[in-house]
Amino acid sequence: MSLSPPFSDFSLSSGTGTEIFNWAKSHYRDHTFAKDERVITRSGLLYFVEKGAVRIVGKAQVNVTDKQSRNPAANAESEEVFLGFVGSGQPFEIVSRFPFQLVAQAHVEETEIVWLYWEDLDRWPHFRASIMETFRYQHQRKLFWLSILGQKRSIDRLMGFLVLLLEEYGQPCPEGYYLPYSLTHAQIASAIGTTRVTVTRLIGKLRQQNSLFLQDDHLIGLPSLFLSQN
Amino acid sequence: MSLSPPFSDFSLSSGTGTEIFNWAKSHYRDHTFAKDERVITRSGLLYFVEKGAVRIVGKAQVNVTDKQSRNPAANAESEEVFLGFVGSGQPFEIVSRFPFQLVAQAHVEETEIVWLYWEDLDRWPHFRASIMETFRYQHQRKLFWLSILGQKRSIDRLMGFLVLLLEEYGQPCPEGYYLPYSLTHAQIASAIGTTRVTVTRLIGKLRQQNSLFLQDDHLIGLPSLFLSQN
Repeated sequence: MSLSPPFSDFSLSSGTGTEIFNWAKSHYRDHTFAKDERVITRSGLLYFVEKGAVRIVGKAQVNVTDKQSRNPAANAESEEVFLGFVGSGQPFEIVSRFPFQLVAQAHVEETEIVWLYWEDLDRWPHFRASIMETFRYQHQRKLFWLSILGQKRSIDRLMGFLVLLLEEYGQPCPEGYYLPYSLTHAQIASAIGTTRVTVTRLIGKLRQQNSLFLQDDHLIGLPSLFLSQN
Repeated sequence: MSLSPPFSDFSLSSGTGTEIFNWAKSHYRDHTFAKDERVITRSGLLYFVEKGAVRIVGKAQVNVTDKQSRNPAANAESEEVFLGFVGSGQPFEIVSRFPFQLVAQAHVEETEIVWLYWEDLDRWPHFRASIMETFRYQHQRKLFWLSILGQKRSIDRLMGFLVLLLEEYGQPCPEGYYLPYSLTHAQIASAIGTTRVTVTRLIGKLRQQNSLFLQDDHLIGLPSLFLSQN
């Protein structure tokens, strides 16, 4: 069983990847970020996680009552929503368009980011093609993610969300697969449209049922039976 | 202001598009579907909406209690979730992977679909490149969609969802922009993780506030102020 994405020949392990990343670095297009530091991005640039991991976070400023009421609560900031990880060797781009704003943040300490202009890739058409394949793949995964978020019960959304993350990033261990990145209950809650308190309660319930375990006391894991079958 | 997606040079209006669609038809790779009819799809094939519109629907069979309880309610079907439209001239592909299932359904009468193998596109590399650009674009849109679904208030999710659809498919009219496809309150509810009753109530509220209007008594429209600013 392979749980990793099918497209990764531009990762650091490949010759072309190393060549391109070195070229980017020789042009001063790399930076190391501390945990939770925001990665300043510009549209039109393409970013790669060379080491560590990035999380993508979204905001949607569509608060309708803003324009209609004088109630200060209505002017509260929109929620920050966890939209997924970008792991080592993977590309990402950040496009924002009012009222939607996407932000990249380093998820772990010493996350190294390299960037390129799309035009730079004209020199490496094969590399460019695999990046496009990755976005195609990510599009499919986001459709699955959206299917999950339409489930009415919070526990189904939570479980579907974890299955999706573990299929992509899960590391094997004796009990099953665990997510190598820590996630707070508030981050999970933002991703599945519920409250932190509900996530804490549901995780407790799933642990009692042995449907979920914690690796090293904080990394979420699922038994293989929830992930295999493919 | 342009509300349409930036990538559409493979649409029917372009010469290459017409040539390729005709080629597919001459190989008996086209079919016309009735409203709500399921488009039988196979993975590895690429589909185009030649006329009409398709909606993508998702299911996620991650019901955790299935495996744990004898409660028949727990074995209920998972919800069908509305995941978006594919308009005329646009490509789509359907990849399913347990426990996630995607389905394409004709959204309007006489929806015409044409299909190709990915390999067929080797003869039209430019066309292939624009399809990949479309998936890249769709990936960005789905990230926006996910940002919306993380909003805690149903009214914010509803409004964000409508903004997203109208930016992409909206047709201009004196009051603003309206969605040329009808959507039931149940379909909207499935997309934004709420109940049909709530959608009906919120749409009534938004209409009272003049934040939403109905074109031809059933097509949802929004005033331009919610859509412009870009």
